[in-house]
Amino acid sequence: MNFSMIRKTLGSLLIFEAIFFLVPSVTAVCYREWEELLVFLACAGICFGLGGLCALKKPKDPHMYAKEGFAIVALSWIVMSLFGALPLCLTGTASYIDALFETASGFTTTGASIFTGAEIDQMSKSLLMWRSFTHWVGGMGVLVFIIAFLPLSGAQNMHMMKAESPGPVVSKLVPKVRQTAFILYAIYAVMTVIEFIILLVGGMPVFEAITTSFATAGTGGFSVTSNGMNYAPHLQVIVAVFMLLFSVNFNSYYLLLRRRPKEAFTSEVRTFLLIVFSAVALITLNVYFAGDMGYTFGETLRHAFFAVSSIISTTGFATVDFSYWPIFSTLILVTVMFIGACAGSTGGGIKVSRCIILSKGGMHEVGRLIHPKQVKKIVVDGKMVDHETVRSVNAYLVAYILIFLVSLLIISFDPMIANGDLMTAFTSVAATINNIGPGVGAVIGPAGNFGDFTILSKLVYIFDMIAGRLEIFPMLVLFSPRTWRK
Amino acid sequence: MNFSMIRKTLGSLLIFEAIFFLVPSVTAVCYREWEELLVFLACAGICFGLGGLCALKKPKDPHMYAKEGFAIVALSWIVMSLFGALPLCLTGTASYIDALFETASGFTTTGASIFTGAEIDQMSKSLLMWRSFTHWVGGMGVLVFIIAFLPLSGAQNMHMMKAESPGPVVSKLVPKVRQTAFILYAIYAVMTVIEFIILLVGGMPVFEAITTSFATAGTGGFSVTSNGMNYAPHLQVIVAVFMLLFSVNFNSYYLLLRRRPKEAFTSEVRTFLLIVFSAVALITLNVYFAGDMGYTFGETLRHAFFAVSSIISTTGFATVDFSYWPIFSTLILVTVMFIGACAGSTGGGIKVSRCIILSKGGMHEVGRLIHPKQVKKIVVDGKMVDHETVRSVNAYLVAYILIFLVSLLIISFDPMIANGDLMTAFTSVAATINNIGPGVGAVIGPAGNFGDFTILSKLVYIFDMIAGRLEIFPMLVLFSPRTWRK
Repeated sequence: MNFSMIRKTLGSLLIFEAIFFLVPSVTAVCYREWEELLVFLACAGICFGLGGLCALKKPKDPHMYAKEGFAIVALSWIVMSLFGALPLCLTGTASYIDALFETASGFTTTGASIFTGAEIDQMSKSLLMWRSFTHWVGGMGVLVFIIAFLPLSGAQNMHMMKAESPGPVVSKLVPKVRQTAFILYAIYAVMTVIEFIILLVGGMPVFEAITTSFATAGTGGFSVTSNGMNYAPHLQVIVAVFMLLFSVNFNSYYLLLRRRPKEAFTSEVRTFLLIVFSAVALITLNVYFAGDMGYTFGETLRHAFFAVSSIISTTGFATVDFSYWPIFSTLILVTVMFIGACAGSTGGGIKVSRCIILSKGGMHEVGRLIHPKQVKKIVVDGKMVDHETVRSVNAYLVAYILIFLVSLLIISFDPMIANGDLMTAFTSVAATINNIGPGVGAVIGPAGNFGDFTILSKLVYIFDMIAGRLEIFPMLVLFSPRTWRK
Repeated sequence: MNFSMIRKTLGSLLIFEAIFFLVPSVTAVCYREWEELLVFLACAGICFGLGGLCALKKPKDPHMYAKEGFAIVALSWIVMSLFGALPLCLTGTASYIDALFETASGFTTTGASIFTGAEIDQMSKSLLMWRSFTHWVGGMGVLVFIIAFLPLSGAQNMHMMKAESPGPVVSKLVPKVRQTAFILYAIYAVMTVIEFIILLVGGMPVFEAITTSFATAGTGGFSVTSNGMNYAPHLQVIVAVFMLLFSVNFNSYYLLLRRRPKEAFTSEVRTFLLIVFSAVALITLNVYFAGDMGYTFGETLRHAFFAVSSIISTTGFATVDFSYWPIFSTLILVTVMFIGACAGSTGGGIKVSRCIILSKGGMHEVGRLIHPKQVKKIVVDGKMVDHETVRSVNAYLVAYILIFLVSLLIISFDPMIANGDLMTAFTSVAATINNIGPGVGAVIGPAGNFGDFTILSKLVYIFDMIAGRLEIFPMLVLFSPRTWRK
């Protein structure tokens, strides 16, 4: 294990985090929140000092292997959350564990909150800005950001990129990893700005337009008022469309820019759109005819579209509390909760491409039972999916189920759960590991929050959020004794 | 597709079913239930006549391939249930669809019932005997029975044996398939008789000792009185021990008989016992200290042992309604519900050996991330698990999840579920696909029944019970258009 490279990369990370703190600092100046300004500058100073110390000494051996890549990525996300939690704690807004939960929820773009609506309404603008900005930073990945702006060798970059990017395979858009990271961030930034302008033109206040754009871009889900997404219908539709846009593989946008539309509509994108369309249609019909909710057909369609878009993108915004829809609609939402967004997007979940590989693998096995001698490979978009990818996707599913189960067992001791209903327990884990935010039910539904859980449960949720964002393996590598053995 | 071989095998099956009907016929004579006797003899006549017609003409081409094996097994279980349902329907005890549910539940050793306790108490002895006897027939598998007693070629036998036997791999105890089947049934019969004698000596009435032994041997779970398992504590412990014994791979008993105890305690058996021990310990502590149920420690231990043994063996007997235990204990029970028994036993579920292969596969993948060049294979009991088995186990998991999900979506329209709780929906599917019987909650918990669901939901449950018993693939092969294509 190359400890000096880990030290140096974590150092660079802290320096970047110091720079990130300037965003809420500027907000504090604009809104004349001098106490908050002091806290943010102090935090920036701490991160810059510590980061500088760590990054100063050049490592003798710059070589990194896959395990260093995984360990660095996992450690980065933990360190980033540990320091990112300082402002909420130092301003006295929350205890350190609550601040850590909120910040991890922000960076991992989960959007689960420990604050009630009333507490959100009283929070200072700069803290709200920091909260929402963590979504934007975490959405595309902070190491991808570092790769884009720091000169590192290609092999080192690729290991980190692989470990941080969501999805079963990482494709480089251009031969150089650094350039790929830069292009991804450029597309990401431009799309965020476009959403901001459209929301502004649509009549949303500037501050909310910025924070909503950050939350949508990262598919996070933090709101800055207790009203959540109770905006005018046309603003809701704009947000819903952008949530979907940010759930599409960013490679597709690059291919569209290069005028290769045929390649852009991969089978993953097509499947994703088909799932969205089917889910919206089924929920609209179910809620309209069996829901007895008192919406018109148009309203039902809008709420269904918003809910599906919000849940499959793993953003977690809500226009209505879907906990009270009929069970069939709840089940459809829980299903898309697990499926999640496309690989290479800012969304979470298991990812559409993994689901495609898993179901094709299952169908192949049945085919092999019928014609045992027929040797066929799994093909997606005309390309053979290699054996290692299939194996890794299967292992992902198993690891996912195991972590889900262990989390469920630990939180079942929480007084909020112990004599409550399994639905709350189940969807709270689903909402954190899939980086969605709200679950189903009164406690953690769109109208609830995670504030009343015990510290142990909050630690489990924090682990699940980070494990979910990094797609489990980096966290398992970090906690495996074999990683640290000589 | 070799249709004449399918016809002939189904014909033999019906002839055997005619013979099976003699068991309740004898009961009817003993208890002087003349009307029932007439019905059972008529059913036997129908099966014998139809079966004779089908089996009479010898097929020109006796060759069978894997797909014929799967299709025959799936069709056999459907046909067997269709005809086995006749007595309950012809005596006017239940509608045909309810009778079919009850019979499929019997043969698949699920033990889910559409009858209330009061209806069970009023039922005639011969019908109760038939209900319990279906457990015994289904437990070891009816085609394994046919293989043991009918002269068929080895290759044909192996295809059917593979399709009907539970677990990822089928090992022949002795070179000849037919002899293997015979040995399995002999062990099964002897163990059933031993349980019967012990229960009798322990003070259980003869009739109940017979039916309880059938239900335990098949890990089914039908009771013959509304009291269920409210017997004296020592009888409960005897039943609990036998439920566990019937959940162990029967190969182990053969190896014990051959005085090879080291080989008998395979890693599957050891893991199984470890799971049982841990689950009992955790539940006992949880219920005793947090449950507030008013049991003494000894009672808690007994109920926990019985519940774990009943659920992991997928029998489904209950001494108490565990729906009211704390959530942690419920979750442990739900977990063992999915794990299930050992491969090659009469129990259902995903099977311990599959779980071992799945988790070893997951751990290997993490190891590969740490040391990418290390090529290691999955090893169980010193033997390498071949690549095909691993792939097939993974595909099983995917198919299992998909069928679970689709079932859940269909039954969510049922008025019993639509505005109810997801827990009932979830555990009703879990209880049928894992062949357990009772789920969790008031509707389908140990004190409830499946009688009030719609016909559509009942058909879904019937499909799930048979798919679960045959471990999914035979049913998928049967419903795949490719099977029937030239």
